[in-house]
Amino acid sequence: MAKELKELTKRGENYSQWYNDLVLKADLAETSAVRGCMVIKPYGYAIWEKMQRQLDDMFKETGHVNAYFPLLIPKSFLSREADHVEGFAKECAVVTHYRLKNATDGSGVIVDPQAKLEEELIIRPTSETIIWNTYKNWINSYRDLPILCNQWANVMRWEMRTRLFLRTAEFLWQEGHTAHATCEEAEAEAERMLHVYADFAENFMAMPVIRGVKSANERFAGAVDTYTIEGLMQDGKALQCGTSHFLGQNFAKAFDVQFINKENKQEYVWATSWGVSTRLMGALIMTHSDDNGLVLPPKLAPIQVVIIPIYKGDEQLKQIDEKVESLVKELKAKGISVKYDNSDNKRPGFKFADYELKGVPVRIVMGSRDLENNTVELMRRDTLEKETRSFNGLAEHIAELLEEIQINLYKKALNYRELNTIKVDTYEDFKAQLEKGGFILAHWDGTPETEERIKEETKATIRCIPFQADEESLQPGVDMLTGKPSQRRVLFARAY
Amino acid sequence: MAKELKELTKRGENYSQWYNDLVLKADLAETSAVRGCMVIKPYGYAIWEKMQRQLDDMFKETGHVNAYFPLLIPKSFLSREADHVEGFAKECAVVTHYRLKNATDGSGVIVDPQAKLEEELIIRPTSETIIWNTYKNWINSYRDLPILCNQWANVMRWEMRTRLFLRTAEFLWQEGHTAHATCEEAEAEAERMLHVYADFAENFMAMPVIRGVKSANERFAGAVDTYTIEGLMQDGKALQCGTSHFLGQNFAKAFDVQFINKENKQEYVWATSWGVSTRLMGALIMTHSDDNGLVLPPKLAPIQVVIIPIYKGDEQLKQIDEKVESLVKELKAKGISVKYDNSDNKRPGFKFADYELKGVPVRIVMGSRDLENNTVELMRRDTLEKETRSFNGLAEHIAELLEEIQINLYKKALNYRELNTIKVDTYEDFKAQLEKGGFILAHWDGTPETEERIKEETKATIRCIPFQADEESLQPGVDMLTGKPSQRRVLFARAY
Repeated sequence: MAKELKELTKRGENYSQWYNDLVLKADLAETSAVRGCMVIKPYGYAIWEKMQRQLDDMFKETGHVNAYFPLLIPKSFLSREADHVEGFAKECAVVTHYRLKNATDGSGVIVDPQAKLEEELIIRPTSETIIWNTYKNWINSYRDLPILCNQWANVMRWEMRTRLFLRTAEFLWQEGHTAHATCEEAEAEAERMLHVYADFAENFMAMPVIRGVKSANERFAGAVDTYTIEGLMQDGKALQCGTSHFLGQNFAKAFDVQFINKENKQEYVWATSWGVSTRLMGALIMTHSDDNGLVLPPKLAPIQVVIIPIYKGDEQLKQIDEKVESLVKELKAKGISVKYDNSDNKRPGFKFADYELKGVPVRIVMGSRDLENNTVELMRRDTLEKETRSFNGLAEHIAELLEEIQINLYKKALNYRELNTIKVDTYEDFKAQLEKGGFILAHWDGTPETEERIKEETKATIRCIPFQADEESLQPGVDMLTGKPSQRRVLFARAY
Repeated sequence: MAKELKELTKRGENYSQWYNDLVLKADLAETSAVRGCMVIKPYGYAIWEKMQRQLDDMFKETGHVNAYFPLLIPKSFLSREADHVEGFAKECAVVTHYRLKNATDGSGVIVDPQAKLEEELIIRPTSETIIWNTYKNWINSYRDLPILCNQWANVMRWEMRTRLFLRTAEFLWQEGHTAHATCEEAEAEAERMLHVYADFAENFMAMPVIRGVKSANERFAGAVDTYTIEGLMQDGKALQCGTSHFLGQNFAKAFDVQFINKENKQEYVWATSWGVSTRLMGALIMTHSDDNGLVLPPKLAPIQVVIIPIYKGDEQLKQIDEKVESLVKELKAKGISVKYDNSDNKRPGFKFADYELKGVPVRIVMGSRDLENNTVELMRRDTLEKETRSFNGLAEHIAELLEEIQINLYKKALNYRELNTIKVDTYEDFKAQLEKGGFILAHWDGTPETEERIKEETKATIRCIPFQADEESLQPGVDMLTGKPSQRRVLFARAY
């Protein structure tokens, strides 16, 4: 805790190292003794909790309820939906035994070979299979529909190359799983939840996102359609931030979930699923932070305002303490989270650097001259601008400033994305532009083969076919690689 | 949903069957396709969420923060603390492989033998080992202490005989893990958290509990002392509702976690851990519910007030709707959660039975005569008493009624416990009393051997050595079985 703060790698020098440094030094997360699994540290978890609370409120406002389904899934369940098992089999953690025992040679505990499971169990990589096996018993008639369940849970995908928050073997997420009587209703639900995610990303994370539908190659294993929100990180790479899937009747058929419809006929149930994960922490960090550390949008900052006294002697500190006490009260009454750090075991300079590193949106410093003048020094983390303000009316000003910072962060990120979204018409230009990074709007002939070839040759993928586009992008053209007809431009990028 | 409600088994006929019926019929939880793992259904989960929120607030008020540690624990970690591995080895789910593949004979997916882990991983049965391995890197000096972390997580203990909520292979819980510079501070923390649990049990669950310390036989595997809160269920059996452990330096030694103390000397860190789980749902159900279904204390009820209209024709419904609308607004403004159920696909009688089954604390019925008289019919779930009340001042009355119900449930449960806590001085009387159920205060010679023999012969265990007891119970006596000297009475019962 009291260790000296070391400098972050600069983004310009090594973006990837900067990210790692930042996650570690801002006390957000760290690697653990278990390959690919992270420890989310208290400060990182506090941000995740704010995300959770907000998302949970938004899910409930749209009529969803929470439930909890088992961590373990029988191996045979995974095989029921052909695409699904194809997508997840290669990264499943498998439970084969249920007991340890002492080795007879005294060498320690070993797995008890007598305690082998008849059927292996998989740690959920996602829960469609166990949930649809459960829904089978919940659904008889259209009167039992819709079912609008969400679950907050840990999941596991045995990734070979992991990065804190962005790609870890275990991660935390929410997964919504809904069941509907009609195709139209399920499609509308999948779209609705994508917009909830986009709303959250833009209005709470201050991160602009492109909403669209995935190409077949990038679809969720088992989905008919996958909707996505895509963010653009500061290094010009895209990050998939959340997905919502229209699953058609695929899982209902795999688990034989039928209902009696209003016409009194048996029909398979229609499904959606949708999820966001601790990956959003990575998105948040990479959208706003700078070479001084984390920059947090006020709506997700565990501490929105920090107050630091600069004083000589106990008498002066006491005067500042008294003055600050009333301000803290006023801020709290406005629902603003504030920390008064008058600890005496750290120098003010250390505190300044530490709270900058932690991304606290507003810093207030009060020194002896401020006492005399009835002022404070205010610094906003997003621009690092300082101003001296009168103590009078300060709480109102801070409330407004927090709103302004929230909006400014969004505008700045939007501006960056707009500057880095380029239309390209030839494959040469496409490859050249990719080196600079950013989103690229280009024509594609609509075939998985062409997409695959582009990916192999350039490492770029189709991030989505955006819902919204300008007139020109919606006009037909020719595929930049094959010259075949294209219906419209789609969004390419290299991605995390 | 629209299926007819079937009668519950009566408590007097078969208490165990009544419990199971109730959990299923009130839509709290159900068994899953995975042996011993439950599905927590939305209504059950909503109650658990209310518990979580309240406990989380109480943890934060006492200075704790949340974090998240890996689901999987290397097998070797478990062995580092001798008692710990002894306690948990027999019920560990073991991950041995990280990939599936298609069988070459086309028979489906099989575990890929190439993907065997070098060291097996255990699904956490509790997280002391992985957390203390992590704390090692967080702690250098006394300035880094205390660490006051909590985690909300799922854990797994491969139980052979499972019961919904009470004993399941996977369950949800919170586990606090704290690190301290002194023995005294750690002991005080373990006690403090036990009192937080007791406060929650008594003031939110309306469940009186006995606070005390466990005998050596019943101690947590790896603890120096285990503190417990013990509830008495309606069938006369005890239920351990939460435990808090003073771990001494056991885990610090096992994971070599030392710090430089204020005297500049290396010292092992002092530890506590404490947890409550979804087992509290079982405690809640068994403390208050009756032959009509669930009875929920208002502070934990997802729906505190339900309003049901009885009407003939749309015109009358419209009049009731209007009248109810203002009441709903008033109740919500008071922070009371209210549901107006004017659905027309269920008869009022069905609704009455359903909300009784679900334990909604207050039911309001409004019919045509109520419209004329400006009244409603009010029923409280705890006593099933009905009264007719004027519509005027109704919201205030309901707010008071909810408080009264909360207090009444506690008093009723306390009265039951007091009537069923008996002092016994001979082994004959002890055995006879056990058949009637309840808590028994008896003398014990303090040896594990005697406790073990009593357990074998009677299935009763020492639930705890209570912190508080009357004068007489604190006097020396003779062990009822061995006749050896006893320092004081301790609390026996048969337990879940």
